[in-house]
Amino acid sequence: MIDYPPAIQDLINALKRLPSVGPKSAERHALHLLQQDRSCIHQLIQALDQAQKTIQPCQQCGFFTQAQPCEICRDPSRDPALLCIVEHPSDILAFERSGAFKGTYAVLGGTLSPLDGIGPEQLGIPKLLRHIQSKHISEVIIGLSADVKGETTSLYLAQNLKKLGIASSRLATGLSVGTSLEYADTLTLTHALQDRKPL
Amino acid sequence: MIDYPPAIQDLINALKRLPSVGPKSAERHALHLLQQDRSCIHQLIQALDQAQKTIQPCQQCGFFTQAQPCEICRDPSRDPALLCIVEHPSDILAFERSGAFKGTYAVLGGTLSPLDGIGPEQLGIPKLLRHIQSKHISEVIIGLSADVKGETTSLYLAQNLKKLGIASSRLATGLSVGTSLEYADTLTLTHALQDRKPL
Repeated sequence: MIDYPPAIQDLINALKRLPSVGPKSAERHALHLLQQDRSCIHQLIQALDQAQKTIQPCQQCGFFTQAQPCEICRDPSRDPALLCIVEHPSDILAFERSGAFKGTYAVLGGTLSPLDGIGPEQLGIPKLLRHIQSKHISEVIIGLSADVKGETTSLYLAQNLKKLGIASSRLATGLSVGTSLEYADTLTLTHALQDRKPL
Repeated sequence: MIDYPPAIQDLINALKRLPSVGPKSAERHALHLLQQDRSCIHQLIQALDQAQKTIQPCQQCGFFTQAQPCEICRDPSRDPALLCIVEHPSDILAFERSGAFKGTYAVLGGTLSPLDGIGPEQLGIPKLLRHIQSKHISEVIIGLSADVKGETTSLYLAQNLKKLGIASSRLATGLSVGTSLEYADTLTLTHALQDRKPL
């Protein structure tokens, strides 16, 4: 049966590896790139190449950067005694966009998952704890996701930080701002009730 | 405010130009490419570059090809007296996958749209008509979409083919195979009723 030429099939296969892009979307993307003004495909190649060559993790915090250390670690106005531990580099941007945190960050790169062979060593937790101790960090905010793996990892980190005598806290769980009560799940509502704030 | 390094922002902007990829999806794609094994990004660059350099429209029919003429036009077993006119190169594959057509194709590249300045000249219709006459094509199947622009263009082509004394036909309109009657729109049902077939 007639199919696309091999070069298009290869392009479709490469695009299919993007998250939530199936065979149909990949085909549509490939045809769009080939049928548009060719500057579009050229620009994408350039951007991919540039990103591939210049983007590295910051050696201090793990955020994406083109120069060592990253913009956040270079900023002298930030509080070096306050550290926020996050799972992914992109989580740092979520905090930065809120504008509510002025300390520094550490990217864990994952959460504890013993069944998948991911223990404290794999996440570099011992090294991170030594770093926290040596830098005289006074408070650690554990900014991991509010799911089971995130909670387990938070607990592990908190216990180990306690041994070192360093205060730690985790993000509050409760209603999302602007949410109607009828859409809140039962567990979130339980947490919101337990952590209620006096007015 | 802190944002991604410029190389990542450029990559997000380039990915945003893909169809139905918004800022959030583009960000997710970019981070996926940077956080995965770098072979993924390398493979995508290679595939884009290869497609950009080698894919051209077939000079005879307009289908994508890496060699002139394309696989379909090279095939001696196909009926050269039967021509199917389609809008996009990818429409050819829809026919090929059905396996129901064994003639040759011509890609129009669009439909008539006088308000956008797209007339017969812009679509190369006069050239196509001369080609049809010179190649002694006996029947032309007009395989355009069943929307207003497709219908208008089909009518224009049919009238001009009639002047040349060449038989033309358009695709039947009616129920999609496997469709329940309750989901058929009224216009489709009207067509299906008008074009009913004796059993």
